[in-house]
Amino acid sequence: MVYKVIQWGTGAMGSGMVKMMLDKPNYFKIVGGYKRREVKPKTDLGAVLGLGQKIGAYVFNDPAEALNRKADIVLHTTDSFTKNIYKELIAIAESGKNCITIAEEMSYPWAKEPQLAKKIDKAFIANGVTCLGTGVNPGFILDLVIVTLTGAMLSVDKIEAQRINDLSPFGDTVMKTQGVGTTPEQFQRGIEDGTIVGHIGFPESITMIANSLGWKLSEIRQTREPIISKVHRETPVVKVQPGMVAGCRHVGVGYVDGQPRITLVHPQQVHPHLEKVETGDYIKITGDPSINVSNVPELPGGKGTIAVTVNMIPHVVKAEPGLKTMLDLPVPSALMG
Amino acid sequence: MVYKVIQWGTGAMGSGMVKMMLDKPNYFKIVGGYKRREVKPKTDLGAVLGLGQKIGAYVFNDPAEALNRKADIVLHTTDSFTKNIYKELIAIAESGKNCITIAEEMSYPWAKEPQLAKKIDKAFIANGVTCLGTGVNPGFILDLVIVTLTGAMLSVDKIEAQRINDLSPFGDTVMKTQGVGTTPEQFQRGIEDGTIVGHIGFPESITMIANSLGWKLSEIRQTREPIISKVHRETPVVKVQPGMVAGCRHVGVGYVDGQPRITLVHPQQVHPHLEKVETGDYIKITGDPSINVSNVPELPGGKGTIAVTVNMIPHVVKAEPGLKTMLDLPVPSALMG
Repeated sequence: MVYKVIQWGTGAMGSGMVKMMLDKPNYFKIVGGYKRREVKPKTDLGAVLGLGQKIGAYVFNDPAEALNRKADIVLHTTDSFTKNIYKELIAIAESGKNCITIAEEMSYPWAKEPQLAKKIDKAFIANGVTCLGTGVNPGFILDLVIVTLTGAMLSVDKIEAQRINDLSPFGDTVMKTQGVGTTPEQFQRGIEDGTIVGHIGFPESITMIANSLGWKLSEIRQTREPIISKVHRETPVVKVQPGMVAGCRHVGVGYVDGQPRITLVHPQQVHPHLEKVETGDYIKITGDPSINVSNVPELPGGKGTIAVTVNMIPHVVKAEPGLKTMLDLPVPSALMG
Repeated sequence: MVYKVIQWGTGAMGSGMVKMMLDKPNYFKIVGGYKRREVKPKTDLGAVLGLGQKIGAYVFNDPAEALNRKADIVLHTTDSFTKNIYKELIAIAESGKNCITIAEEMSYPWAKEPQLAKKIDKAFIANGVTCLGTGVNPGFILDLVIVTLTGAMLSVDKIEAQRINDLSPFGDTVMKTQGVGTTPEQFQRGIEDGTIVGHIGFPESITMIANSLGWKLSEIRQTREPIISKVHRETPVVKVQPGMVAGCRHVGVGYVDGQPRITLVHPQQVHPHLEKVETGDYIKITGDPSINVSNVPELPGGKGTIAVTVNMIPHVVKAEPGLKTMLDLPVPSALMG
């Protein structure tokens, strides 16, 4: 089966997904696109994405026009928050199309937006189609992979996982939301006024893990601390002098009966190797038996999100109607046939 | 929901599963057992398993009698080969019960027994129930986990994975089938006459991985070589002098278009640390991006198999009817609620 896909969002993630799908014509055909900013009529999606080739599919600024194509699924890549995309998701459901969104909150919307989650679930069921939220994190490395590993354990006492990554390849927006290049005082103010956010997804990953294990969370606590650089660090978009902030160390802790049971640590910074920090994903699960997994270097965030999203398409199209998570569906595999 | 379970097989694995389920009365209730060797009428399953406590469920030597209980699922732990258990699986299907078997070949029976797989699938569909083959390996660490990791990749070139484990805790049967304590000459003869078998499951894991990626296998090659000890190694059941065989290094390679694409290496021996061999599971997937996962020490085989089997029960009971693999169902999680 060749899946007909509408690409909803034309940023770095959407562009990467289109490129991946163009490389796999046995699996995918792009039939249209949606762009938040205005676009001239009859613009080819390839032109908007700067691919240097025509795709043979138009990109629209009007959701209704974009959804007027015949398609199996919409890949939705425009936002992080459920409330911002709720109406778009409902429109996708009502057009009778399946959907995968990389909005971080949608990886487990019951964590922060249970009312909207219920409505989204209903709309997709009513139209006989499926919606999945995913991405590399949340959606894969610090939740799906952790849960899978617990599946080989008789009992679990405590989960501690770290994702240490390098932000150097990212653009200006990421640097700002992580506070890279600020002074410690500016960082503190950014946290207070909400312009520096750190990672989005800890409540979702922690709730997903807890629910799958049958643990009742009493509380989720999050802290965001500046990673103060001892050395000069520099990328094409930011300069960090010694004493300034190279990134944000974001920690999320899930408590069960007042005890910390799920601790997720995500220090994100530019050029961590300059202070001999090795990037990687580290999962330590204490229990019977204990598990101690490392992935070095870390699974790259951009490529990982692109791949997980595209590789989940067959499972989502085949799934029962409704709002699903990565824990409801079979695992993805790289589609190489 | 409390799942009613019949335990089919009373060896180390079956016994471990019963113990695990007794610890989780919110999830499981044992309603009966089957034992291959004769057993007195009205024998409690707990007595047969040496648990030192009554379970309140009888164990039978007659399959029909065992299946005469009302139950949601049968955990089947008596054999490694599909052809040896085919009739038992059909009887379980015809009794209207779901089944999980740890027979290694059943983790992907289409690899070696496609005709029987088809018949088993049909029988379970006809009776509206589900059959799953699983275990720690095959079924989890060298297939499900590998496939899951490829799900975060744009493309895969090559898969190389090693599972280095310690056989020291195992009994006499395992030592014999792995050739532990033989001379190199005896090992060679054992391989030739089939008494030394190494690992069972490479064709299953390799075919499972290849099919999920869409790769067409041209060939699977297996080699089994003696691990000759340089030092004295000893367990309660076997002694290995320097120059004798401490275990079997079993390698399975899946070829695609004549190229080795999937290489699984499984050196199994007693006391590997005496020659400074670190046990662990190591998964290296070359592609875009490449992935490099270690789990140190290795996931223990016995506990891993027990846990994966029991933790999959809810998914199997809920699944659509038919013969399934670990790639068809959602991932397991430790059941701790």
